[in-house]
Amino acid sequence: MSKSNNYCVIMAGGIGSRFWPMSTQKYPKQFQDILGTGRTMIQQTFDRISKIVAPENIFVITNKEYISLTEEQLPQLQSANIVGEPMMKNTAACNIFMAKKIAHINPDANIIVLPADHLILKENTFLEKVQLAFNLAAKNDYLITLGIEPTRPDTGFGYIQFVEKKNSEYFKVKTFTEKPDLEIAKTFLESGDFLWNAGIFIWNVQSILSAFTEHLPEMTQNFDSCDYNTENEIGCINVIYPKVNKISIDNGILEKAQNVYVIPSDLGWSDLGTWTSVFENAEKDSFNNAVKSKHIVTYNSTGNVIKLKNENKAAVIDGLENYIIVDTDTALLICPRDNDQLIKDYIQDLKTIKKGEKFL
Amino acid sequence: MSKSNNYCVIMAGGIGSRFWPMSTQKYPKQFQDILGTGRTMIQQTFDRISKIVAPENIFVITNKEYISLTEEQLPQLQSANIVGEPMMKNTAACNIFMAKKIAHINPDANIIVLPADHLILKENTFLEKVQLAFNLAAKNDYLITLGIEPTRPDTGFGYIQFVEKKNSEYFKVKTFTEKPDLEIAKTFLESGDFLWNAGIFIWNVQSILSAFTEHLPEMTQNFDSCDYNTENEIGCINVIYPKVNKISIDNGILEKAQNVYVIPSDLGWSDLGTWTSVFENAEKDSFNNAVKSKHIVTYNSTGNVIKLKNENKAAVIDGLENYIIVDTDTALLICPRDNDQLIKDYIQDLKTIKKGEKFL
Repeated sequence: MSKSNNYCVIMAGGIGSRFWPMSTQKYPKQFQDILGTGRTMIQQTFDRISKIVAPENIFVITNKEYISLTEEQLPQLQSANIVGEPMMKNTAACNIFMAKKIAHINPDANIIVLPADHLILKENTFLEKVQLAFNLAAKNDYLITLGIEPTRPDTGFGYIQFVEKKNSEYFKVKTFTEKPDLEIAKTFLESGDFLWNAGIFIWNVQSILSAFTEHLPEMTQNFDSCDYNTENEIGCINVIYPKVNKISIDNGILEKAQNVYVIPSDLGWSDLGTWTSVFENAEKDSFNNAVKSKHIVTYNSTGNVIKLKNENKAAVIDGLENYIIVDTDTALLICPRDNDQLIKDYIQDLKTIKKGEKFL
Repeated sequence: MSKSNNYCVIMAGGIGSRFWPMSTQKYPKQFQDILGTGRTMIQQTFDRISKIVAPENIFVITNKEYISLTEEQLPQLQSANIVGEPMMKNTAACNIFMAKKIAHINPDANIIVLPADHLILKENTFLEKVQLAFNLAAKNDYLITLGIEPTRPDTGFGYIQFVEKKNSEYFKVKTFTEKPDLEIAKTFLESGDFLWNAGIFIWNVQSILSAFTEHLPEMTQNFDSCDYNTENEIGCINVIYPKVNKISIDNGILEKAQNVYVIPSDLGWSDLGTWTSVFENAEKDSFNNAVKSKHIVTYNSTGNVIKLKNENKAAVIDGLENYIIVDTDTALLICPRDNDQLIKDYIQDLKTIKKGEKFL
């Protein structure tokens, strides 16, 4: 049965520091119900892909610190399918690690790689595009990405420039550009031949391993030295991880490879990368506040995102417009929504000025 | 030894709802270290008066719900000196109750009555004025108050108009006016013969009991029916309390009595009745924020009062000017300082709209 060649890797290793104080090193964003829908981000990601990939073929790769959180939240996964990285090494390392493991199980595997913490509203379109990508990857030596039609000149995303846009559901990629400045982002948007890189990749395991051999030979050599899915795996991974480069799969492979293809996909997608994007994607009350907690009263307040981690806590908010108000047991954040990119700086200040490591 | 005729009654029965969410029904303002000085308000009140009144002569009268909090915070007091009221009945009832008890112990007692939750910065002046008042009360049938020179036309205080201000340390009171409107408060301030009523009273126990007999005969009759400082006291008090009027000592006695005197006293006094008065009396950081917690970073923020009940909690505050930010385990309040009189309304809304009784 051909379906069993299709695998999924959910990448769940990030810390989500832009979502402080809701997201912390101990309890990052992907393990939280940021939008208040009743399921955490990683659960939503799993639910979505499990419609098309069998649970025994779904893997999660995360920091070893988060293995027990993953087990708790995804009891459908066998423990062998939850893989811990000994340290953060960006996305190239975890992709070759998972490709090696899956190739050992099934050398014909097609793999979809999904970030654990993105929002996708149009699930049917998503599943349709993924099926198309699996079919393409099974038959061609293609590295495939899903590309999102950009709606604003966002400088926080990678942009994919494609060629020959005619009567096809997919296009060859010309260039990858990570996080352009605002002027360049504007010209990208106007030109009409750029898509956002959503970080969703589909490839046959042999295609991606070949690409690693070609473009990241040193990293590949390190990973070649381990025996996967044996009791020696962990020990070997612990030895090689400190040696490998911190590089993203985008920079390390996709910007260099000549066989990258993009499927334009209207997914209702958001990376939920900032509180503002949460605000935009969340349900709003009649005063245009994104509030999920039950015991909140607002006055003269609009355009705020208000999150209390403790659902049983009360709040009274008077006279705030376009603010982020996030409260947890250990920290309180109040800042203008326009400053949501400064949250990493706040954390840095808290760390250095106030010796507040424990809150982060 | 004459000093042993001097007694103190600390009134500690209030709920302090204007200090929500820091002050709650379970844990009211007087039992909290609102200014972050290291001692709660009732402890400060006790510390201050115990320089001039022996601990065995100091009584606390409070709601019976707060007896154990009082015992905890004032271990110097014998348990007989902590008196519980079965319900809130305003200040007339608790004053006659305590006068009856103390008269039974010492019929020559002079009593100073102190609110448990006021700030007094000039302790030496306070003690000096109290000594003067005790001396006057011991020799004269006077009901004496300490009066504060008003600094603004505050509509939240009672005003005392006095007569014959010449070369004396005390004056006869002409009228008591509770909470005037703003226009009247302004004329009071301009006239120069009004003082604020600080709620600090000194009288001989026989003087106050005579005044009760004359001006509140029905209440007096009720309290006459109990045997004080016996095992029957509690039972009798439980029977009469539901019957007595809810009336303040100001309305019930002082506005009617002809033998009221005031000692103008520059005490560095604040009733700490609102968050704004806390702001005004608290130490400020270099950005003019009243912040006591250790782990708070502020940006573009001035004139705020920021209180986190959990001292180990962190906070980042960006872009707030003249706000009240108060966080406890059960509730968060963010509102403009100018709206500090609305806190009772917020609580009401939380109760009715959000069914939030448990947060109050």
